[in-house]
Amino acid sequence: MPLDLAAIRTAHDRIRPYIHRTPVLTSARLDAASGGSLFFKCENFQKVGAFKARGAMNAVLALDEATARPGVVAHSSGNHGAALARAARLRGITAQIVMPSNSSKVKVRAVEGYGAKVIFCEPTAAARVATCARVIAETGATLIHPFENEHVMAGQGTAMIELLEDIADLDVMLCSVGGGGLLSGTAVAAKSLRPSIKVIGTEPANASDAFQSFQAKRLVALETTDTIADGLRGNIGAPNFEVFQRYVDDIVTVTEEGIIAAMREVWETLKIVIEPSAAVPYAAILEKKVDVRGRRVGMIFSGGNIDLDALPWVKR
Amino acid sequence: MPLDLAAIRTAHDRIRPYIHRTPVLTSARLDAASGGSLFFKCENFQKVGAFKARGAMNAVLALDEATARPGVVAHSSGNHGAALARAARLRGITAQIVMPSNSSKVKVRAVEGYGAKVIFCEPTAAARVATCARVIAETGATLIHPFENEHVMAGQGTAMIELLEDIADLDVMLCSVGGGGLLSGTAVAAKSLRPSIKVIGTEPANASDAFQSFQAKRLVALETTDTIADGLRGNIGAPNFEVFQRYVDDIVTVTEEGIIAAMREVWETLKIVIEPSAAVPYAAILEKKVDVRGRRVGMIFSGGNIDLDALPWVKR
Repeated sequence: MPLDLAAIRTAHDRIRPYIHRTPVLTSARLDAASGGSLFFKCENFQKVGAFKARGAMNAVLALDEATARPGVVAHSSGNHGAALARAARLRGITAQIVMPSNSSKVKVRAVEGYGAKVIFCEPTAAARVATCARVIAETGATLIHPFENEHVMAGQGTAMIELLEDIADLDVMLCSVGGGGLLSGTAVAAKSLRPSIKVIGTEPANASDAFQSFQAKRLVALETTDTIADGLRGNIGAPNFEVFQRYVDDIVTVTEEGIIAAMREVWETLKIVIEPSAAVPYAAILEKKVDVRGRRVGMIFSGGNIDLDALPWVKR
Repeated sequence: MPLDLAAIRTAHDRIRPYIHRTPVLTSARLDAASGGSLFFKCENFQKVGAFKARGAMNAVLALDEATARPGVVAHSSGNHGAALARAARLRGITAQIVMPSNSSKVKVRAVEGYGAKVIFCEPTAAARVATCARVIAETGATLIHPFENEHVMAGQGTAMIELLEDIADLDVMLCSVGGGGLLSGTAVAAKSLRPSIKVIGTEPANASDAFQSFQAKRLVALETTDTIADGLRGNIGAPNFEVFQRYVDDIVTVTEEGIIAAMREVWETLKIVIEPSAAVPYAAILEKKVDVRGRRVGMIFSGGNIDLDALPWVKR
């Protein structure tokens, strides 16, 4: 199945009863400060607190009956795990989520709260892959990869359809890159519906594999990354990079200080809670990595799940 | 001018171009936890970050030309000062805000940011009154009291009109009490539009002058109060207490721990930023001071202005 506008529209029709249509916020103050007109699509208000609810729901609903029956499995230390657990419960099938043994209790409880079985493994990529493979061999469950999955990408792209329904005449679209599921769906939807739009990926400089890959025109993987934007630490997937090369205009990077400042400014000004990964596009504006003056600029606040005991601006 | 539904409707027509119609949020999770159906009117998203924008705007617009010309004055260490400054600027008149000399820089900058002149005084009630009196004598400015003012009360009541337009069949309405401006306007609007509704004031136990007054059926003033809900530290006004005796069904109190827990739960679940004073009605539900099981319950999140460097759950 190719990732195209038709696939994203199909996903939207399929998942609509199970997700929120999230609001688009604006701020006269942030417009004045930036010189642009900014439109914030609030996926922090989405089910499970992140856009991940869209892609996981689409992937689970797209399974045929026989494939669905033994359930689904994924490795995730974050929002995809909760989203897949919720989607499986809504379809009435089992979800098994492989999580690193050092996962925070809050995240483990969130996944268990949606009725999934949590399987712990050593916090290494090798252990994660091996554990998933074992679960699949033992149970016949289907792997739902967090971003290297066409149905997941198509589901993530549905937020962009909604944003353009609400604000038709965007000049620029900013979107964070972790594994690349959101940027893939967003770029295909944006360019298909509005070919003149510029789609710019935004990424922490401390986890800049997408930026480096885009510059080098080949997939660059990083051994270690260290950013407060915990949803963006992983490397991009190969199918996602293929989409970027065709549909994304540019990728820019931001500093850790910029991410923290952006997150704080959003909390203070818009009075909403967003997680560090969600603040990355606005950080690109703050750090003048993107020229927004006189332009109509959309961005997705990707999620709102953050440990309120560990806020980055609090001196301890 | 009596405080009645007509006055609140007049206020609403007058201020509508200058305020946000704020959204009403719901949460399946908080409904399940409480056993009721909860409707949160989000005045944290209001202009200046608090419902105070409504009352101040109405009071400033209600002045006749000659009275308005020398400007307005108020004492305020919080949201009313910013709201009055904004309202005066929109009408093109001067605002002078008397603030205690120990006010936080953030609050002083907010008021100055709206173009008002800040006049510092000693942090005592006597100095505040004397300083306001001096400004009035010297400049002819009109005092806009933060709650003992019929136009301010009528303006605050406009949020309740909007809430009942959105959710017509509320059984119970919860509303915080500081000076009593919001509860006055809310109670009159609620009981006039829907006589069967129960209107319950919610107050910190550490600043329970409204509760004590309501029990004693006479105005009880407290010398000192100490609550994290900084908008609710003052004593209620005499005209406000008159309104309560006629329109309010009950007043309940909550603990400091309850306020902090309620605020945190709202941030985590609804992904929005509310200030401690705004969390007091939900704290009353958490602490089971109000029985909401099977009932449709409205409440106003009164504001979202909080110092992100001093969050109460962060251990230092």
